[in-house]
Amino acid sequence: MEVSDILKRVRAQKPVVHHLTNWVTIYDCANIVKVFGASPVMAHAKEEVADMAGIASAVVLNIGTLTPYLVEAMKLAAAGANRRGIPVVLDACGAGATRLRDDACFEILDGVRVDIIKGNASEIARIAGEKVQTKGVDAAAVDKNMQELAMRLAGKRSCTVVVTGVEDIVADGRRMVQVLNGHPMMADIVGTGCMASSVIGTFAAVEKDLVSASVAGLVCYEIAAEMAAKEAHGPGTFKEKLYDAVYGLDADTVERMKKIKE
Amino acid sequence: MEVSDILKRVRAQKPVVHHLTNWVTIYDCANIVKVFGASPVMAHAKEEVADMAGIASAVVLNIGTLTPYLVEAMKLAAAGANRRGIPVVLDACGAGATRLRDDACFEILDGVRVDIIKGNASEIARIAGEKVQTKGVDAAAVDKNMQELAMRLAGKRSCTVVVTGVEDIVADGRRMVQVLNGHPMMADIVGTGCMASSVIGTFAAVEKDLVSASVAGLVCYEIAAEMAAKEAHGPGTFKEKLYDAVYGLDADTVERMKKIKE
Amino acid sequence: MEVSDILKRVRAQKPVVHHLTNWVTIYDCANIVKVFGASPVMAHAKEEVADMAGIASAVVLNIGTLTPYLVEAMKLAAAGANRRGIPVVLDACGAGATRLRDDACFEILDGVRVDIIKGNASEIARIAGEKVQTKGVDAAAVDKNMQELAMRLAGKRSCTVVVTGVEDIVADGRRMVQVLNGHPMMADIVGTGCMASSVIGTFAAVEKDLVSASVAGLVCYEIAAEMAAKEAHGPGTFKEKLYDAVYGLDADTVERMKKIKE
Repeated sequence: MEVSDILKRVRAQKPVVHHLTNWVTIYDCANIVKVFGASPVMAHAKEEVADMAGIASAVVLNIGTLTPYLVEAMKLAAAGANRRGIPVVLDACGAGATRLRDDACFEILDGVRVDIIKGNASEIARIAGEKVQTKGVDAAAVDKNMQELAMRLAGKRSCTVVVTGVEDIVADGRRMVQVLNGHPMMADIVGTGCMASSVIGTFAAVEKDLVSASVAGLVCYEIAAEMAAKEAHGPGTFKEKLYDAVYGLDADTVERMKKIKE
Repeated sequence: MEVSDILKRVRAQKPVVHHLTNWVTIYDCANIVKVFGASPVMAHAKEEVADMAGIASAVVLNIGTLTPYLVEAMKLAAAGANRRGIPVVLDACGAGATRLRDDACFEILDGVRVDIIKGNASEIARIAGEKVQTKGVDAAAVDKNMQELAMRLAGKRSCTVVVTGVEDIVADGRRMVQVLNGHPMMADIVGTGCMASSVIGTFAAVEKDLVSASVAGLVCYEIAAEMAAKEAHGPGTFKEKLYDAVYGLDADTVERMKKIKE
Repeated sequence: MEVSDILKRVRAQKPVVHHLTNWVTIYDCANIVKVFGASPVMAHAKEEVADMAGIASAVVLNIGTLTPYLVEAMKLAAAGANRRGIPVVLDACGAGATRLRDDACFEILDGVRVDIIKGNASEIARIAGEKVQTKGVDAAAVDKNMQELAMRLAGKRSCTVVVTGVEDIVADGRRMVQVLNGHPMMADIVGTGCMASSVIGTFAAVEKDLVSASVAGLVCYEIAAEMAAKEAHGPGTFKEKLYDAVYGLDADTVERMKKIKE
């Protein structure tokens, strides 16, 4: 897979990526898109989300600090994206933790077309209909074959499913790819999961094959994390160096360091 | 006091700490909890706050960017915490600056059980019923004996009171402990006060003696700040190094550097 | 122009700068004010915005993640500021991207007195009545004489207009000054534009001549950016070093490095 080719297109096309995300990681969601060379925009008022989706090349939804109002706005933004045929990413942040989060995910998935569903193992298991109690927004241990579960959910929802973890799974019902890049320190700070969804949205904005887009986004982001971890003295400096590494990422490094299992 | 023992329990038990906090420092509140080894979760929708408190081991409330809606949600979350017997921390951020903030604090304190009230000198003086005009969210000079005031407020509200400053005061009406750790640069960036409340909530999640929990949290956090300040070239690098220092904090360093006056 | 004199007054007077800003950059808006030595406060509840404006020395409005509620609150805060004669800054963040943003700007400008309007070229062109389609929140190419446009808008709205870009324009209908400081890396991260408005508000809090205040704020901020860029390895470390540089900025450096065209 020509991962670096998609990265080059992100930088050349600078797509606008519209977010309705949570209030915790909203800056980092925007900044990771910016540092990859694209153009983030955040807007959540019902009165403008469809207009903003109208000038964007992808829409990223994240239920991390959802309210019923935000879920309504997410549906309006996604409907606008659906009309224009641009991809919609849903980060099922915290699914399984409360009834409201589960209901919101199902309401969005049933009401509009979501092109990519992304979550950690327990979130995806919950969206796939399994009974799992997640521990807030951190991944809980799931006694399931996640590859099978991802394939099943992708088939059921006719979409691409991304399960993040030590080994990421990207599946669309026919194909399944694993991304083996990344670093444990990503789990030591807040926001790396949310940023992954923003990266996937950014790559999906320039690549129609959503498995390739998701894999390429994860590979580039996680290679940068590997590079950052080498220079970091802890999670504080890690995050700053992650931005530096993403910004300076070159095609050769990406192709040399990528670890994909197809 | 075995401060490092409580730190070890935070890292071993990884408690979920539920926040209803402000939109300014929400990332840092979450990240400081994460870097201490615990599991932050942020949720403010009335429909889920009690459910989220139901899977948490402590609840942290912060009125930094309050609205009447958020105050209602805070009371629901705290009521859920009260039912389960888990500690509730209230950061009286900006109390004394406006009528709304004062009213919100009193409404919360009168409506639910708050286990720990935390603020700077002017905020705590205001909550204790003194007439002080704070200067926004920064501490104003208070011509009061804060130790006496803290003891009185703790007695009146049957809770633990934490007054942060150059010398922190922790009092529960019977006992009074001072924490002398910390560094002036903590006052040069936004968010160190809010993070202190999140740290106190995290330590209170694993230690029933709330004076010990508050003191231990402040000591660990402020020792990390001392270490970070030594390596920092200014407030920007200070903050990143603060996260690094918290993450790398070991028991021996904590016991050697702690400055407590009992 | 004695730029460093105004910087000294910011540090000596530590003005309270009240913000109603967006949820993306709210931390950075607060922190840049703090690091300059002033006292940021963020509050958006309709019930307290006028009270908070009542203890502030300047009010900064930013429509980056606006809702109709926030626009109402902005008008209440600005009206409070108008009554007290303290300056109001409006960052027209994303104007031109959606109907809601354009309408919000005009509603605010028609309903209260705004002392300084700040935006990038496409945002200011839109507010001046030109037909431009902005690309989200990033500046779009504008085929206009921006100096002329800024002068015209300043005259029409009886205010000071700041157009940020490689060369910033500050105009009040009679005078026009250009600031040539800054560094391209400012455009590689999210938030530098919003922070610029907060800095302008901070300087306007201590200097009645709003052209001088705006120029001085931009010069100091952008000199710090030049210094930070020299030490940065990318956009992540750049941002931390920007805070360090602002904090350590001295009068001699400012006077030596300032690039103003009057």
